[in-house]
Amino acid sequence: MNPGLNKDQQELVDTAERIAHECLGPRAAEVDASGTNPKESWHDVWQNGLLTIGIPKKYGGHELDMLTYVMVIEKLAGGCTNTGMTVHMHSTVMRFIDALGTDKQRAMYYPEIVDDGKLFGSWGSEPQTRGGSAFRHTTITPDGDGYVLNGEKNFCTMSGGAHRYMIHCNAQNTPDPIGSQVLALIPNDVAGLSQMDEWNTLGMRGTVSPSMKLDNCVVTKDGVLGKPGDGYHTGITQGFSLGFAAAYVGAAQTALDFTKDFCIKQTFSGASGRVADELLVQRTIAEMTMTLSSARMALYDAASQWEGKTANQRAVIAARPKYLATLASQDVSTKAIQISGGRSVHKRWPLERIYRDIRTSTLMPPTLDRCLELIGRDEFNLDTALNRDA
Amino acid sequence: MNPGLNKDQQELVDTAERIAHECLGPRAAEVDASGTNPKESWHDVWQNGLLTIGIPKKYGGHELDMLTYVMVIEKLAGGCTNTGMTVHMHSTVMRFIDALGTDKQRAMYYPEIVDDGKLFGSWGSEPQTRGGSAFRHTTITPDGDGYVLNGEKNFCTMSGGAHRYMIHCNAQNTPDPIGSQVLALIPNDVAGLSQMDEWNTLGMRGTVSPSMKLDNCVVTKDGVLGKPGDGYHTGITQGFSLGFAAAYVGAAQTALDFTKDFCIKQTFSGASGRVADELLVQRTIAEMTMTLSSARMALYDAASQWEGKTANQRAVIAARPKYLATLASQDVSTKAIQISGGRSVHKRWPLERIYRDIRTSTLMPPTLDRCLELIGRDEFNLDTALNRDA
Amino acid sequence: MNPGLNKDQQELVDTAERIAHECLGPRAAEVDASGTNPKESWHDVWQNGLLTIGIPKKYGGHELDMLTYVMVIEKLAGGCTNTGMTVHMHSTVMRFIDALGTDKQRAMYYPEIVDDGKLFGSWGSEPQTRGGSAFRHTTITPDGDGYVLNGEKNFCTMSGGAHRYMIHCNAQNTPDPIGSQVLALIPNDVAGLSQMDEWNTLGMRGTVSPSMKLDNCVVTKDGVLGKPGDGYHTGITQGFSLGFAAAYVGAAQTALDFTKDFCIKQTFSGASGRVADELLVQRTIAEMTMTLSSARMALYDAASQWEGKTANQRAVIAARPKYLATLASQDVSTKAIQISGGRSVHKRWPLERIYRDIRTSTLMPPTLDRCLELIGRDEFNLDTALNRDA
Amino acid sequence: MNPGLNKDQQELVDTAERIAHECLGPRAAEVDASGTNPKESWHDVWQNGLLTIGIPKKYGGHELDMLTYVMVIEKLAGGCTNTGMTVHMHSTVMRFIDALGTDKQRAMYYPEIVDDGKLFGSWGSEPQTRGGSAFRHTTITPDGDGYVLNGEKNFCTMSGGAHRYMIHCNAQNTPDPIGSQVLALIPNDVAGLSQMDEWNTLGMRGTVSPSMKLDNCVVTKDGVLGKPGDGYHTGITQGFSLGFAAAYVGAAQTALDFTKDFCIKQTFSGASGRVADELLVQRTIAEMTMTLSSARMALYDAASQWEGKTANQRAVIAARPKYLATLASQDVSTKAIQISGGRSVHKRWPLERIYRDIRTSTLMPPTLDRCLELIGRDEFNLDTALNRDA
Repeated sequence: MNPGLNKDQQELVDTAERIAHECLGPRAAEVDASGTNPKESWHDVWQNGLLTIGIPKKYGGHELDMLTYVMVIEKLAGGCTNTGMTVHMHSTVMRFIDALGTDKQRAMYYPEIVDDGKLFGSWGSEPQTRGGSAFRHTTITPDGDGYVLNGEKNFCTMSGGAHRYMIHCNAQNTPDPIGSQVLALIPNDVAGLSQMDEWNTLGMRGTVSPSMKLDNCVVTKDGVLGKPGDGYHTGITQGFSLGFAAAYVGAAQTALDFTKDFCIKQTFSGASGRVADELLVQRTIAEMTMTLSSARMALYDAASQWEGKTANQRAVIAARPKYLATLASQDVSTKAIQISGGRSVHKRWPLERIYRDIRTSTLMPPTLDRCLELIGRDEFNLDTALNRDA
Repeated sequence: MNPGLNKDQQELVDTAERIAHECLGPRAAEVDASGTNPKESWHDVWQNGLLTIGIPKKYGGHELDMLTYVMVIEKLAGGCTNTGMTVHMHSTVMRFIDALGTDKQRAMYYPEIVDDGKLFGSWGSEPQTRGGSAFRHTTITPDGDGYVLNGEKNFCTMSGGAHRYMIHCNAQNTPDPIGSQVLALIPNDVAGLSQMDEWNTLGMRGTVSPSMKLDNCVVTKDGVLGKPGDGYHTGITQGFSLGFAAAYVGAAQTALDFTKDFCIKQTFSGASGRVADELLVQRTIAEMTMTLSSARMALYDAASQWEGKTANQRAVIAARPKYLATLASQDVSTKAIQISGGRSVHKRWPLERIYRDIRTSTLMPPTLDRCLELIGRDEFNLDTALNRDA
Repeated sequence: MNPGLNKDQQELVDTAERIAHECLGPRAAEVDASGTNPKESWHDVWQNGLLTIGIPKKYGGHELDMLTYVMVIEKLAGGCTNTGMTVHMHSTVMRFIDALGTDKQRAMYYPEIVDDGKLFGSWGSEPQTRGGSAFRHTTITPDGDGYVLNGEKNFCTMSGGAHRYMIHCNAQNTPDPIGSQVLALIPNDVAGLSQMDEWNTLGMRGTVSPSMKLDNCVVTKDGVLGKPGDGYHTGITQGFSLGFAAAYVGAAQTALDFTKDFCIKQTFSGASGRVADELLVQRTIAEMTMTLSSARMALYDAASQWEGKTANQRAVIAARPKYLATLASQDVSTKAIQISGGRSVHKRWPLERIYRDIRTSTLMPPTLDRCLELIGRDEFNLDTALNRDA
Repeated sequence: MNPGLNKDQQELVDTAERIAHECLGPRAAEVDASGTNPKESWHDVWQNGLLTIGIPKKYGGHELDMLTYVMVIEKLAGGCTNTGMTVHMHSTVMRFIDALGTDKQRAMYYPEIVDDGKLFGSWGSEPQTRGGSAFRHTTITPDGDGYVLNGEKNFCTMSGGAHRYMIHCNAQNTPDPIGSQVLALIPNDVAGLSQMDEWNTLGMRGTVSPSMKLDNCVVTKDGVLGKPGDGYHTGITQGFSLGFAAAYVGAAQTALDFTKDFCIKQTFSGASGRVADELLVQRTIAEMTMTLSSARMALYDAASQWEGKTANQRAVIAARPKYLATLASQDVSTKAIQISGGRSVHKRWPLERIYRDIRTSTLMPPTLDRCLELIGRDEFNLDTALNRDA
């Protein structure tokens, strides 16, 4: 049992590990090849109670603490990176609904997940903006009883596959780009929503994240979470990085396990033993093990510190594992291919897929540069807002 | 003009650069997506006189010195990695025919390239053997007037697309695995040749390199180049690495150029200037430039030393640029994606393709480990045979 | 309070930190410059009850668990690397006496430390042997009522300064180099002991570790700890690495703290702020912080796992922090000098001394290569004896 | 013979190599230990005609081209880093006198070197200024027939040992910090010159570079080279980096040679061969060889391009080898110690001295950060002035 987990928490982590192995993993190659959402795997996640890890117990969810949460995401991503990442995006939206929503909103939205197994997406990126800045180019404007949204979004994860999308938009009614940010939920069949390009990418192909256009998309009053500016201060946005780091660690662990298994089973003509008996291979496996273990320790340590911290403190706390897990997972997946040699580039092996997923997903904000800046500023007690505009 | 090139040599390099830009580059994405040989690009290479760079002048070729040669391969790979690598494989077979073939053989085979634009492949890898060892599991046995081949080969580049394949096989008539190696040419429609698996890979998809089975494939007397064991001592095998290094450098240069162009043209909302005006970007571009420049200098230096060297000296000479170009091209293509951010993972941009091609092609033997070993042994005046069995 | 420590344990760590700051640190430059043992600092360590951390409570010691122990060594080394390392060597001898000694031996030796503040050294290295092998060239031979020692030892730490030395010697009465190893205690004024060279080194100058010759040095029956071969299986030798890692982390932390303080206080003409306000400095400090934090986490994790493990398990457990702390401390001390610039090379600043101490002390066995090998072998469930001969 | 050198040039390089080996090297340890200028070695440099390598032929010097020049400095530093670096500083002053001085000045100063073997120093650094900025805190003011200097200088190389010092000072008569810079020569016994601190440092101890105070030091009219602002545009300042890089490469080569020699000669008990026969050692030597070779190639390439370039172009050209040689020499000297193990930290071996010299000398401006910035800006065709104020 993991230190710091109670029996119930450990059980959820074990469940995640089990379905990752039995259900998610066997479908991962097909999800990648087809570039479609892992809907069957989402269904398994739901059936096994893990689609509600970000939902309060009061509404039938698990209301997971951050440490158990990152372990669950790590395990899911170990089976299928696309599933792990999308469940994490979805679960983060659940946290926003809890933190900013009214009782009415919670009662309206949560059953869609608990009872029906639906997923919610979160769309932030804009073509004009880089990760460090506030989203301000997608506008929300009062209109009749509700509002309308207008703008363009990039990397619209689970486009088509999720039931609702939480849009990071901007009321533009104050000069403060953070203070006028709004989180608004739209159904996936809202009028005015259209796809602008294809999602045909290096990796994370099963997230299906094309660019989308919002053209006077209607948001009802119940679709708006909290007041303008509330979102930033919840400290939930900062948690995206923790889940990303968990997914990188989980995917890299699978690459490492596969490689070790290859080394144990493979012998070559003329060699005196198995690949595992070669000193140079042992050394490389040792390096992979240590870098991954350091990233995981930093991740669990960060998750353990999460409760009770401010938004800016969380930006720094999450930046450490994001940075270390990015480097570790890239290192591990690269060395996995190097050790396994030419055969590892075949799509019938999982290594090249994990390698592509890691390279792609580690581009998620905050960037390595931004992580370093936040951590360094914190060491000097300088401001550490995740968004430069804050 | 490059130092060390005369006008004719420079003209060939310029031609390679021009067709890479005008013809090969525009087709590179489609070659990758379809996973088929770049036949139209080969045609352009032939039409522009670059399919004969490894053929003696006497037979209508350019008989290129190694320095000009690597520059041509570098330029071709800058447009399309698949084209650059396959033309290099083909040209190396041309050198084997020159070194080991009889006048009759030269007169028989060279016109197929000079006049008809055919390509020749080279198949070495075996499932049971790693790069450092001699190929010994594919046998050549006297049969009637000629011989028959039996065995399995991996990474059979240009399978289906080339006109003939040069097979590294083994007469197994001596206990010396190097001394009994034979190079034998078979036509692509030889009876008994069958494909064992699909070529569906991370990168280098246009080389079409599946595993192939040779089941009593007939080789005529004219299909055998030289006597058993001759191949190793020509020092031509060692030249594979030089061309690989050239292809890595060429591909990485294209990634770097594309990235610089992006930095110059792109501005983001809220930023004070272009991406190119950011200090962190400038630093990263500086690192990319220097590592690539060091690899290229080492490559040209190695190529300039090539003439008159023994097989074992060439193994070391080629190991240096192979090692440096592997690391440099991986570093450059990784940083190109990091700088360009999320958009770079789309297949409508070239970066992710180049990234995949580099990651795949840098697995070609000798491995990084083997390169280091050869170079280190040479520093201590220890034996530096490319093949451990030599 | 550190997680996992009780109040008494934390108090000892706090004491170590306090005397490191108040007593050891101010003397560290002079200890280095003079190349003499830190006798005054040892006295402070004794007076503050930290010379007995490896001695059982029954005999008046603190009998520290491994986690508290490494924290104490880390703090002491943060004030003076020479003091931290020598107290660690001494304390490890205390553990050997506890594990292998008789009640009579314990009652004879421990009061010399508890009551009189003496130190015990440990001499292993031999000119003919590298770290991975058993010490076999220094012999112990029955002679009269006791034994005599003969041989040469390198890196004889606390030569002249300690009260007794524990000699790793060999009975040579079996073909098994590990099984015939003996640990024997000699007083520092034993006849036949002579110094072979000067201890004038890059760093760790205050350990005073010249080469020594043992020429028929008499060992009484009470001077021999346990039976031949017992020493290896106690799993105490493996703990040397943990204390080394602790010392590296402590020394590097002091370098980091000093550098941060410099960045906060220093401004340069023409700059818009303090050094701490520069992005490139912030990034470097972030890197230093993370690498050191990862090493420390691995160290505490290893120490927490120590109890109940076999000698071979401990070899692996200790190899991880030894490896990570070696790299981290070298990285931190190098970057500290880079950030601080030219002024940091002056001996009136502490950075160059810490840099030299780290570079020197990280050469202690097991080497980085040996650590990687042990860790890699463990991943494949292969044998992980610290000594190759085991 | 080196490509690009004629017989005379090669002869000078050979002479440098010979005296480095025969004269400078044997004294290097004592120069370091005593922290005094290498006066005897300077004498040898003069007697062998290498003190005039920066002096025009017309005045009896060798007027070396930049390629031969860096090779000479590299060789000298290979014997004694202190000698190589000081001869380079001196020779750069010679170039300033040639570029900015009048015939009268040349005729006055050069014979002091050619006939009498004197050295000239160059003092730039100021306590308030970092490398990237113009020196402005040391003032030159008209006074009577000449001028007076006032201010403080750091890193006053050859203090006491040189015959004259060229002071980078500032007329402060324009708002342009570059345009008002002046180069002024003072004799070493000028009134008002006093030493502010001791030079007791990590390495480069034989340069004797304390902080100095100039208190109304008189400069005659003949002591001023050119008009205010002239110095910057000569492009000579930029050449400091080339010579530094040459010294790093030379020192690192000596560390590498020493290490290889150790590996060839040393065997350990229980090992199956020499240290040189170990794979891990061979690999590390290969890495050292390649990184050093890449730095040297970049250095020679830069030197070959030097003629006819502007000051800003030279800033970039020199930044490349400065950057690569810094990293390479640190890497090589660190690995040399790692391979050689504990014995390498003894002062009776040269490795720890070279390690300290390299760590110290690589702090000379421009810093690694500044080099990256210059190179990156050049890639984007942005301004690349060595001084930020230019």
